[in-house]
Amino acid sequence: MSPQEAYKELEKRLKEVFLIQSCQAVLGWEERTYMPRGGTELRSEQRGYLAGQSHEKFTDPRVGELLSTVEGSGLTKDPESVEAVNIRETRYRYDKDTKLPKELVEELTRTTSLAEAEWATARQKSDFKVFQPWLEKVVNLIRKKAEAYGYEGEPYNALLDDYEPGVTTDDIAEVFAKLRGELVSLVARIKDAPRKPDASIVERVYDIERQKLFNEMVAGAIGFDFNAGRLDVTTHPFTSCFGPGDTRITTRYNPRRLNDALFGTMHEVGHALYEMGLEKKEHFGMPMGESVSLGIHESQSRMWENQVGRSKEFWVYFLPQAKRIFRESLEGVTLDDFYGAINYVTPSYIRVEADEATYNLHILLRFELERALISGDLKPADMPGEWNSRFKKYFDIEVDNDANGCLQDVHWSIGYLGYFPTYTLGNLYSAQFFAKARKDIPDLMQQFELGNYGGLLDWLRKNIHRQGQRYRANKLCEKVTGQALSHKPLMEYMNKKYGEIYGI
Amino acid sequence: MSPQEAYKELEKRLKEVFLIQSCQAVLGWEERTYMPRGGTELRSEQRGYLAGQSHEKFTDPRVGELLSTVEGSGLTKDPESVEAVNIRETRYRYDKDTKLPKELVEELTRTTSLAEAEWATARQKSDFKVFQPWLEKVVNLIRKKAEAYGYEGEPYNALLDDYEPGVTTDDIAEVFAKLRGELVSLVARIKDAPRKPDASIVERVYDIERQKLFNEMVAGAIGFDFNAGRLDVTTHPFTSCFGPGDTRITTRYNPRRLNDALFGTMHEVGHALYEMGLEKKEHFGMPMGESVSLGIHESQSRMWENQVGRSKEFWVYFLPQAKRIFRESLEGVTLDDFYGAINYVTPSYIRVEADEATYNLHILLRFELERALISGDLKPADMPGEWNSRFKKYFDIEVDNDANGCLQDVHWSIGYLGYFPTYTLGNLYSAQFFAKARKDIPDLMQQFELGNYGGLLDWLRKNIHRQGQRYRANKLCEKVTGQALSHKPLMEYMNKKYGEIYGI
Repeated sequence: MSPQEAYKELEKRLKEVFLIQSCQAVLGWEERTYMPRGGTELRSEQRGYLAGQSHEKFTDPRVGELLSTVEGSGLTKDPESVEAVNIRETRYRYDKDTKLPKELVEELTRTTSLAEAEWATARQKSDFKVFQPWLEKVVNLIRKKAEAYGYEGEPYNALLDDYEPGVTTDDIAEVFAKLRGELVSLVARIKDAPRKPDASIVERVYDIERQKLFNEMVAGAIGFDFNAGRLDVTTHPFTSCFGPGDTRITTRYNPRRLNDALFGTMHEVGHALYEMGLEKKEHFGMPMGESVSLGIHESQSRMWENQVGRSKEFWVYFLPQAKRIFRESLEGVTLDDFYGAINYVTPSYIRVEADEATYNLHILLRFELERALISGDLKPADMPGEWNSRFKKYFDIEVDNDANGCLQDVHWSIGYLGYFPTYTLGNLYSAQFFAKARKDIPDLMQQFELGNYGGLLDWLRKNIHRQGQRYRANKLCEKVTGQALSHKPLMEYMNKKYGEIYGI
Repeated sequence: MSPQEAYKELEKRLKEVFLIQSCQAVLGWEERTYMPRGGTELRSEQRGYLAGQSHEKFTDPRVGELLSTVEGSGLTKDPESVEAVNIRETRYRYDKDTKLPKELVEELTRTTSLAEAEWATARQKSDFKVFQPWLEKVVNLIRKKAEAYGYEGEPYNALLDDYEPGVTTDDIAEVFAKLRGELVSLVARIKDAPRKPDASIVERVYDIERQKLFNEMVAGAIGFDFNAGRLDVTTHPFTSCFGPGDTRITTRYNPRRLNDALFGTMHEVGHALYEMGLEKKEHFGMPMGESVSLGIHESQSRMWENQVGRSKEFWVYFLPQAKRIFRESLEGVTLDDFYGAINYVTPSYIRVEADEATYNLHILLRFELERALISGDLKPADMPGEWNSRFKKYFDIEVDNDANGCLQDVHWSIGYLGYFPTYTLGNLYSAQFFAKARKDIPDLMQQFELGNYGGLLDWLRKNIHRQGQRYRANKLCEKVTGQALSHKPLMEYMNKKYGEIYGI
């Protein structure tokens, strides 16, 4: 068999694996958006089955044979060619996935499908006890997963690598160490600032039907294609790309706060724009049609949410429109008032609703806790207490209930341990990418004022989206910005922004 | 291998097949309810793939071996035992399905998935030309399917058998022949009746949000469990049971007609109650947990729609509630007025909105046309002309556009040829079952007046639902009613009902 033939067969097999995973994605999306409670058990069986099937087909020894045939052939001569990238990343994934027994994959999918439903109930009742046995099951399975993968140093490394290939726990700890001091200092200066925005502007009555309309307008304006996607409502917002032509996002509405659904939607649109910008049709089911890492994914969502959505220029264009829709609540509100209100910094319970300055402290907390869960230093039963005491330390507020505490995020219920640090990586990448985009497009912020977001999107598509997995995250960052990842662009961006708003 | 072991393995394999089909069902439902247009192509690939997988696994020669091992063993000694029924019906399906090549199954699923989207567009534009090439593709594939199955007499027999096992085209033609004369006579007498109800009562303004609420109330009252199902909106109403605990129904709303969504909903609830009443959990993926035939399925939907929903007693309970919700439109309307209005008989374009008297003429028309499509006597290109001229003959009205004509039903786009006659079988079965239920429960109609529908539901569950596929349709009918299927109960029911309403 020639390498070319082997490559063709590999493509065919990966396409099949992708089709199964994309069915899984539809079932997962539907489970969270519309499924009645009674469907929980069947859905967990369905998803467990499909997960087992895609795992079995991907880890088939034949895939290994095909990889061996194409590796070192002419196809990999140019390491940045489509074929070479697809081969390299498939090998990476193959070597990891073949370490996982099919039974574990099925059990994890079935268990997390049920655990997510229990988490939703627990969160609604604000009762950790409901969720505790499920957290125990999930953590237990995830630890087994880490053991199956194998690792150097601590087991958390094995998990982190799923989301951010090649990055270690020590890397993350180092990033946090650098960021933490500067962040804490910024938050302290803001606390003692001479002037403060009036946050109550965005805490008036914002009719949900009108919010939906406004969110759709904003999502469409920044590039979300409603012919190739939907915006729905879920307990925990997320993005799911089923494949070419179909990307779903969700949000949740608070009738007394404009920020939550609005910036949540822009965040998910950022994820969706990345998925929509990948060449999924051309590279169906292949690494070149897939995102680089969760950190890079978050850089896209956080950029549209923050660098775009929380910029003053964005609201030059959109505030007049918002005023026509939320007439009474925004009457007489100036651009500066509004800009201040949406950038009001205050310690708060909920990560996804946090301001940019305190956001990374939320991640730091989760990183420490899940690292301890995985190492075994922290028992699931002790989570609420541990969460609350650390929260008090970092934010200086008492957690009033579990829904505002350790039950707020969906991640642990669905087995996403090792995922949280990628949010902070995303913030760092987003600031660094955005600084470069501003250099490359000198009038970028003026474009925002005119309601033109295509310039930024084109830049992202060319530099990031269409690259698929050609480069790993750190290398992509160097290629695009000319620099290794650093916490400086993010701190510069925040110091400047809050300096202006708070007069510090 | 002992028969018991073989049976266990058979169960395991059928469970897997069912899981794949149930994933398919979720994807199909989502395609019709929420999927954005851009997802069409991917969805057709996904569904084609899953259809191929379930076909391959079901027709695996190992299934044939297992069947041979269990057949004639002690397991089949009592032909009405769970095991014997599961073995008998699995064999029947296996012998049919093994005749179909996997490629045909995949192609049919992919093609109909795309064809349905094109049909929806064609119907919206009321332009048959948009749909014609797809109808040609589907008919071509369906004829291949009939050839692959093989048949005695005409190819239509092979298709009909998929929906109504054991019934032939001649059987259907005979039923129609008996029914037709009496129906035509009834419709003629109604046309010349001395008194006529005022249909305009149900053609006032009925706010859609209020209709939704009312439909949910009615659906819940007659037994639809919203914890184990949903009611959504689609172009063409349907029911889809994913498996135990999750049954979906849909309807469509007309802001100027109360009947359409209301009786459409009750119809689909009837299907759903059957699915919810089957012992799907106990007989997961096995024939004993599945419905007998489409005819029996329709008997359930038509019974709840007509014998219950269009009875006067039902509205003794529900009219006062409807009046509170549709205050202005129903002001001053008496029970008799309302009962007359919902039972107004008039030739009309749309089958699913037809009255009980003309309904079966719609089926007759479709039966003749699809039989001709399959035999090759009718070319898809000639469908609109042929539809319209026959429609004129049966209903004495000119079809004004394709959306009101041959594009109104989804069935042909999704390859359901041979399906339509089961609607009329359903009407016959429903009348015969209902007459027996009234005998067994003397105060049944008084129960309706009190808002109690549990008596009927219990009777259906015991006599029909929980029987699964223990008996074929005709035998079930004899077991339940003591009589073979006859057109007389339906005609007696209609003659009596319309005699009272129209004074004939």
